[in-house]
Amino acid sequence: MALGRPQWGAVRARIAELAPTLPAVPLGEVELHLPFEVADYTDFYSSEHHATQVGRILRPERPGLQPNWKHLPIGYHGRSATVVVSGTRSNGPPASSARASSGPPGGWTSRPRWVSWWACRAGAIGPADFAEHVFGVVLVNDWSARDIQAFEYQPLGPFLGKSFATSVSPWVVRSRPCPARSCRRRRRTRSRRSTCGPRATAWDLSLTVEWNGTVVSSPPFAQMYWTPAQQLAHLTVNGASVRTGDLYASGTVSGPNRAQAGSFLELTWNGAEPVELGDGSVRGFLEDGDTVTISATAPGPDGEPLGLGSVTGTVCR
Amino acid sequence: MALGRPQWGAVRARIAELAPTLPAVPLGEVELHLPFEVADYTDFYSSEHHATQVGRILRPERPGLQPNWKHLPIGYHGRSATVVVSGTRSNGPPASSARASSGPPGGWTSRPRWVSWWACRAGAIGPADFAEHVFGVVLVNDWSARDIQAFEYQPLGPFLGKSFATSVSPWVVRSRPCPARSCRRRRRTRSRRSTCGPRATAWDLSLTVEWNGTVVSSPPFAQMYWTPAQQLAHLTVNGASVRTGDLYASGTVSGPNRAQAGSFLELTWNGAEPVELGDGSVRGFLEDGDTVTISATAPGPDGEPLGLGSVTGTVCR
Repeated sequence: MALGRPQWGAVRARIAELAPTLPAVPLGEVELHLPFEVADYTDFYSSEHHATQVGRILRPERPGLQPNWKHLPIGYHGRSATVVVSGTRSNGPPASSARASSGPPGGWTSRPRWVSWWACRAGAIGPADFAEHVFGVVLVNDWSARDIQAFEYQPLGPFLGKSFATSVSPWVVRSRPCPARSCRRRRRTRSRRSTCGPRATAWDLSLTVEWNGTVVSSPPFAQMYWTPAQQLAHLTVNGASVRTGDLYASGTVSGPNRAQAGSFLELTWNGAEPVELGDGSVRGFLEDGDTVTISATAPGPDGEPLGLGSVTGTVCR
Repeated sequence: MALGRPQWGAVRARIAELAPTLPAVPLGEVELHLPFEVADYTDFYSSEHHATQVGRILRPERPGLQPNWKHLPIGYHGRSATVVVSGTRSNGPPASSARASSGPPGGWTSRPRWVSWWACRAGAIGPADFAEHVFGVVLVNDWSARDIQAFEYQPLGPFLGKSFATSVSPWVVRSRPCPARSCRRRRRTRSRRSTCGPRATAWDLSLTVEWNGTVVSSPPFAQMYWTPAQQLAHLTVNGASVRTGDLYASGTVSGPNRAQAGSFLELTWNGAEPVELGDGSVRGFLEDGDTVTISATAPGPDGEPLGLGSVTGTVCR
């Protein structure tokens, strides 16, 4: 990772060369670990649909989108220590303290994310430098205790409501340069009139969210407003440095429809419109023992779908 | 650090034993480095005077203190990679982008902090476990670009406005158990009627802030509302784990008077009431090349003042 992009390619080529000579190990016999040690963890807020819908739910008296949202990528730093590999049971917060003194009766929601991970270099990184710095992509589930978050987030942002666990998929998929970046930027400056379809974006991921095995949502990544390259530039534009192992996430991926909701907060409209799962049970929020799995595919270089794997996790308070 | 408190004492004793046999090296010949690698960095917001005054400055239409503030310690995660040792020049953000589209014409302010640093242990840590986990104290200057912060902080908290640099003092002062912790907690539950003087708190630090060599403020740490032990408990109460190298800061230390302002934002009331420095220059905000030094003392075990050293830094955009 730290050696940079030329070595990433060389190692990959060497592995491909060696692979036929190595014994096959069934995947079921393998225990997968966290694929890298997380240095700094940042989570963004790149979906206009998500930001607007969450604003409507949590701040109904004001416009959904904050005035700053289209001027710069909004994000926050999270707790690196609690990034865990897919499959880890998440011990969440006791759902008591914040509720006792505040807001809506809540519960956990989960949010599908993508994530990138970069190699070190000091100094500001422009959008064009993206491919040199981002090693690859994992899927991220940023578990959130919305009742706690809603109470604590003024004015310094989320803290206990998110710091207990963030799950990532165990396989890092190597990123490729993003040909649609300039297209996406052009779209924004042309008063948001798009001249290129969503298939033109390199990040045309199709996500699937399962709640206890029932597919509840299919968020479209291609509609994200801020691109990974813009976010990487934003992370360093103020002179801040980055390191090998830094992890940054897109933030919740939501489309305009309920069936494209990227967070359960939106899916159930903060619990007001519960969903029915395959076993007949009804959920407004996550319950103890619930399992959430997010998987994703993208168009591959040959037009074949490229799997990005999945991230799964079970909550227990 | 990772070996825990018994080893901390053993190493200290061994060093004291060896010291007379080692050659003396003048401090001026020594280059001091960052004393530890920062794992996760958290900054709190523990001064009631600061939180109230900043609220009045930035949100004059609402009460200074937010409704959640006395229910739990408010904090945010920062960028660990940009914690630098005292004396490092801080390359700050270009003061343009945020100003172009937002808020008050601003500038940098600096904020004196204390900081603790703990050894690893998983699971929730109660206030009584503080001495087992916190290795020692450094002074922290959390540089802030307030114009950027004011524009970006809704709803996820500060990001670019703080991520470019955080300075820490190079000498870690070993902490001792905090006998006033229970006293401080009793004070809060008794409707804030204090039965013990500020000398009774173990964290009775006296801070001094110099701006280009002129003392501009003397913030009193003893008046902080939330204690370090309460903050450590808060960091893990939701099931989040901590690691060796984690760093957490009190947040700005302010008293009720202007001469006790812990941030330049308060000292100059967001630039509206500039201060005159010793060389006759007048400042509303930090300017390029300005140097800020924070130093601190505390009552030692024998009643003698105990030095906590200083943290200094120079800003250059």
